[in-house]
Amino acid sequence: MFAKTPDPPYYAVIFTTQRTEGDNGYADMANRMEALAAEQPGYLGTESVRGSDGSGITVSYWDSLEAIAIWKRNTTHQFAQTQGRDNWYADYMVRVAKVERAYGRST
Amino acid sequence: MFAKTPDPPYYAVIFTTQRTEGDNGYADMANRMEALAAEQPGYLGTESVRGSDGSGITVSYWDSLEAIAIWKRNTTHQFAQTQGRDNWYADYMVRVAKVERAYGRST
Repeated sequence: MFAKTPDPPYYAVIFTTQRTEGDNGYADMANRMEALAAEQPGYLGTESVRGSDGSGITVSYWDSLEAIAIWKRNTTHQFAQTQGRDNWYADYMVRVAKVERAYGRST
Repeated sequence: MFAKTPDPPYYAVIFTTQRTEGDNGYADMANRMEALAAEQPGYLGTESVRGSDGSGITVSYWDSLEAIAIWKRNTTHQFAQTQGRDNWYADYMVRVAKVERAYGRST
């Protein structure tokens, strides 16, 4: 669950979503995108939760804005983004943020 | 589900948690803290999801680091923070981040 991020600063992409009804290929693509993201340069980790009402928050962490931009332009990811907008998400928000401070306890 | 945030920049507190077993007063306090946070100066909104495995992500949005600092020091909130560390969360991470870009579609 907890991403093993380095000391700040680094970047977070906060991806808030509301799923549509039915799977329609979503689960398979979500797994593929998580695996593909993890191979990208500058990827630091992901934390993701989905509730029983279809609401979800996925936060991916990156070492630079450039790494985020390259991942956004990835061809396979672009195909998934289009499917997401058209089929899988009733609504979605993406927020790109610079993590300035982090603390807590994770095992 | 979706926070109605203004145009960036603004700040996000990404609160990632793993709940312990049992309620132990958690649900009541979570509701109280959400209501109390919403009354604070500089509060912009919250997005929150918890999964069936007890993992959760809550992102609260604020207009300044000062607003976040004041909320962190709130006496009632400090009591909740102690309860969280001691009783409700097996693990938790707090990340404070500056939102630089936002886009999407929410109704």
